[in-house]
Amino acid sequence: MSEKVKVIPLGGLGTIGKNITVIEYKNDIVVIDCGMGFPDEQMYGVDLIIPDITYLLENKDRVKGIFFTHGHEDHIGAVPYILKQMNMPLYGTRLTLGLIKSKLEQHGLEKSCQMHSVEPGDCIELEDIKVEFVRSTHSIAGACCIAVHTPEGIIFHTGDFKVDYTPVDAQTMDLERIGELGKEGILLLLADSTNVERSGHSPSEQTIGKTLMRLFDGVKGRVIVTTFASNIHRIQQIIHASSAHNRKVAFSGRSMERITEVARELGYLEIPDNTLINLEDMGKYTQDQLTIITTGSQGEPMAALARIAFGNHRMIRVEPDDLFIISASPIPGNDRLVSRVINELYKKGVEVIYKAIEDVHVSGHAYKEELKLMQSLTHPKFFMPAHGEYRHLKHHKDLAKQMGMKDDHIFIMQDGDVLELDREKAAVTGRVRAGNILVDGIGVGDVGNIVLRDRRHLAEEGMLIVVAAIDLETYSIMGGPDVITRGFVYAKNSEELIEAVRVAATKELEMCLAYQMVEWYMLKANIKKVVEQLLYEKTKRRPTILPIIMEV
Amino acid sequence: MSEKVKVIPLGGLGTIGKNITVIEYKNDIVVIDCGMGFPDEQMYGVDLIIPDITYLLENKDRVKGIFFTHGHEDHIGAVPYILKQMNMPLYGTRLTLGLIKSKLEQHGLEKSCQMHSVEPGDCIELEDIKVEFVRSTHSIAGACCIAVHTPEGIIFHTGDFKVDYTPVDAQTMDLERIGELGKEGILLLLADSTNVERSGHSPSEQTIGKTLMRLFDGVKGRVIVTTFASNIHRIQQIIHASSAHNRKVAFSGRSMERITEVARELGYLEIPDNTLINLEDMGKYTQDQLTIITTGSQGEPMAALARIAFGNHRMIRVEPDDLFIISASPIPGNDRLVSRVINELYKKGVEVIYKAIEDVHVSGHAYKEELKLMQSLTHPKFFMPAHGEYRHLKHHKDLAKQMGMKDDHIFIMQDGDVLELDREKAAVTGRVRAGNILVDGIGVGDVGNIVLRDRRHLAEEGMLIVVAAIDLETYSIMGGPDVITRGFVYAKNSEELIEAVRVAATKELEMCLAYQMVEWYMLKANIKKVVEQLLYEKTKRRPTILPIIMEV
Repeated sequence: MSEKVKVIPLGGLGTIGKNITVIEYKNDIVVIDCGMGFPDEQMYGVDLIIPDITYLLENKDRVKGIFFTHGHEDHIGAVPYILKQMNMPLYGTRLTLGLIKSKLEQHGLEKSCQMHSVEPGDCIELEDIKVEFVRSTHSIAGACCIAVHTPEGIIFHTGDFKVDYTPVDAQTMDLERIGELGKEGILLLLADSTNVERSGHSPSEQTIGKTLMRLFDGVKGRVIVTTFASNIHRIQQIIHASSAHNRKVAFSGRSMERITEVARELGYLEIPDNTLINLEDMGKYTQDQLTIITTGSQGEPMAALARIAFGNHRMIRVEPDDLFIISASPIPGNDRLVSRVINELYKKGVEVIYKAIEDVHVSGHAYKEELKLMQSLTHPKFFMPAHGEYRHLKHHKDLAKQMGMKDDHIFIMQDGDVLELDREKAAVTGRVRAGNILVDGIGVGDVGNIVLRDRRHLAEEGMLIVVAAIDLETYSIMGGPDVITRGFVYAKNSEELIEAVRVAATKELEMCLAYQMVEWYMLKANIKKVVEQLLYEKTKRRPTILPIIMEV
Repeated sequence: MSEKVKVIPLGGLGTIGKNITVIEYKNDIVVIDCGMGFPDEQMYGVDLIIPDITYLLENKDRVKGIFFTHGHEDHIGAVPYILKQMNMPLYGTRLTLGLIKSKLEQHGLEKSCQMHSVEPGDCIELEDIKVEFVRSTHSIAGACCIAVHTPEGIIFHTGDFKVDYTPVDAQTMDLERIGELGKEGILLLLADSTNVERSGHSPSEQTIGKTLMRLFDGVKGRVIVTTFASNIHRIQQIIHASSAHNRKVAFSGRSMERITEVARELGYLEIPDNTLINLEDMGKYTQDQLTIITTGSQGEPMAALARIAFGNHRMIRVEPDDLFIISASPIPGNDRLVSRVINELYKKGVEVIYKAIEDVHVSGHAYKEELKLMQSLTHPKFFMPAHGEYRHLKHHKDLAKQMGMKDDHIFIMQDGDVLELDREKAAVTGRVRAGNILVDGIGVGDVGNIVLRDRRHLAEEGMLIVVAAIDLETYSIMGGPDVITRGFVYAKNSEELIEAVRVAATKELEMCLAYQMVEWYMLKANIKKVVEQLLYEKTKRRPTILPIIMEV
């Protein structure tokens, strides 16, 4: 066994999401995070993406567990799917584990799992290495950096972070400890690259509290606020503003109810007595005594906010004096969905406050100056930009170089690349299997490129089926050809076109039969070709053409 | 015939794109602009959207022509499709008409059309009204506001505009004339709402020129710049920077070649002698003597920039010293496409400059302070916010109210609403037909909601076909049932599932035949139901299920 440290990102590089990093030394393999990814617009019908963990399965005996930096979906979302393939201990702060537990319950897996709750500052001793949790700040409570102590030096993974000097829970990032670790000797830094393109320093989460206070002043109707359900500190501030304005608070949306319940139970969210009410009890209060906190900040059509806006929420109708606050930014790709909800609310005549209008959201990821601070405190020997698309990794590399790091000490890696390092040097020495497993419904991995290609083609052009029954003894057509379309043209407006297809297919089929040309593949190919040409000529479209010939 | 003025937006309200507004008085109907719209992500396979002009067809005799504010696609793109339904004169500045002409040529329509070139300041006299073109500034040359003079007062349509005090061609907006018209009496103002959410004043197009000059300094390789092909002034500035740095310029991308050719012929674009070269001649120059201006600023996969980035451009390979400049902002919805191109270029090791890094783009639409200036100069009696989603129209209304306009003098309208007005009052008095006609291939209007619903369903879940041949005399199965899938699951990994479907379908079909239950509709419905249940149970998916039963 090599005496070198290996660091292998199995996910999270070159794309946002699906974060999972493997760190190994001798007999120990530790996994940092186990997140899900999000399908892009070309992955029709795919619900979510999980990482390929073949490498872990092949090295099962050495895997000591998953160590979580925080509880966001892109860091914990794949856990149920991965534990089904391979059970292992889970380490994280109470909120992180609480959120994982509630996920595992949905999959009926909570009984078999081994959860180890840690406090920031805790250090887990394994066979050859130690894993230390260091308190961090991010847009979710209970976030940590993870320091893996090896005989060759420390591997320091920031997780997702921002440097918030005035966090809502007053639990500041443990910068002193990070400095101390830097002094001790950090061999490799892996750091969050998400906001490397933004200059300056991210505003503190507390700034939102002040804006909310001001916005709540003098509102006659209900205040309906949407944010990420996991942003406990944001929710805490909405609750502060509500109770300061004598408003009760109700939650709407499954993940909002679930996560706030976990956070309350674990003491991360404080709700003053007699403040929380059920949606069902809203009728007992006047509108100016109510705040509703909902899911749907990304405009998701099935989430609470969109349902309210479009008038199909079970309990909540838009009322004229309502004030809506969208306390989140659209993730790239969701702009149109969010815009649709804003437009609909304005059409209903209510006020809507969102990022373009007021400062009702701050990012949870470090800007340039914070990233420089992290470089300074850790002054690592080697550096691997993490958590970002290639452009972010590249700019993070540039930033480190500006601060004096040597080009060949910085590694922009791809998922599956193996970085081997000791106290002297580091190099990418190989690759292991890594990739996307697509989850659709309860099927894991049964949707792949071919299925997606077909869906794409069906989506863009629709399909046309030619079906016929033939008798191979008499070489005659026994039924059909019939023509059926889906997603191609209005059948009733296109009778002429469909009839032309039927005639052409019949002619071709008769000719093939007349020549006794009944090799199955050729028969289908010929019909397909004739129909394809006809349709392209008449419509300039290329639907999927499916000739079905049955022998009877 | 009413003596009132009618203003009817047939497109462009509540959405960005498809701009077309009808203004009529007595015997005259004038149409302002005739743009195309862009399909949203749910309109699978749709190429473009054009407005429904039923209203114009019904009032053919009075329609005097289309008057164009400027040559962007969302203002001229539907012209070929509309002229096929109804020929009419076209009025616009030379560049606008030049761009329309080149579109009409592609449709073989250029011979039958009647084009009337105007200069800013020109006034077209019709039977009862006059149409005046007023010089404006926007992100395309030759932009105008349009003032329709009626006996009841002036209807002033800003078109798309910004107030650029230092435009590249020194042709400033004719603010004096707008002020004069305001003094004369503007009955109704229709104004661009796109950027009403942005505070302050938009930067002048000239600021980009300075940034480009600086970026070009000391570049060792080629400079490859992408921008909107129609942004002639941007292209002019890229050419300035190139010739100041002794670089030849080549164009890449069909629309870039087409539009710059039109602009040069008409004198809108000045290229110094011996500067323009063909792509084919690039080899004759060293890399630091070359600038390439390409299409693809929105990351469109088939456009020149993406082709270059992904290595499948006919002529251009990425070279290590290339500097890429993306001189445009992604339109909402295109962020991911643009990001993909940036990532790919960085992976190839070249420098890429874009909006997040440097000020290489300015908007062509007025910010808040410019919109206030427009309100001040025109001080209209009535106001209709135009060109925007509902949220923009709403904020534009708020802005006008802040400046003292009465709430009931401002009309947020929907496409098809009829605003009737005279010098005293204005009111929405009815609706005419308006809407989206979808264009797919050469089919106009043959893709509608049902087809789109089918495509959506196929896209998300794929399909499964059960096909069988039966003999109705003997009530027996003659062929099949066979099972065919597309976009559902990997057939080869799912043999068991497919076999289970086959068995279930066979059983159901046999049972129906045994009971001589051969009512066609019922037979199919029964098989569909059985298969649907089985698939949902086993996969939690609901593909489109198509039972095809043939009689032989």
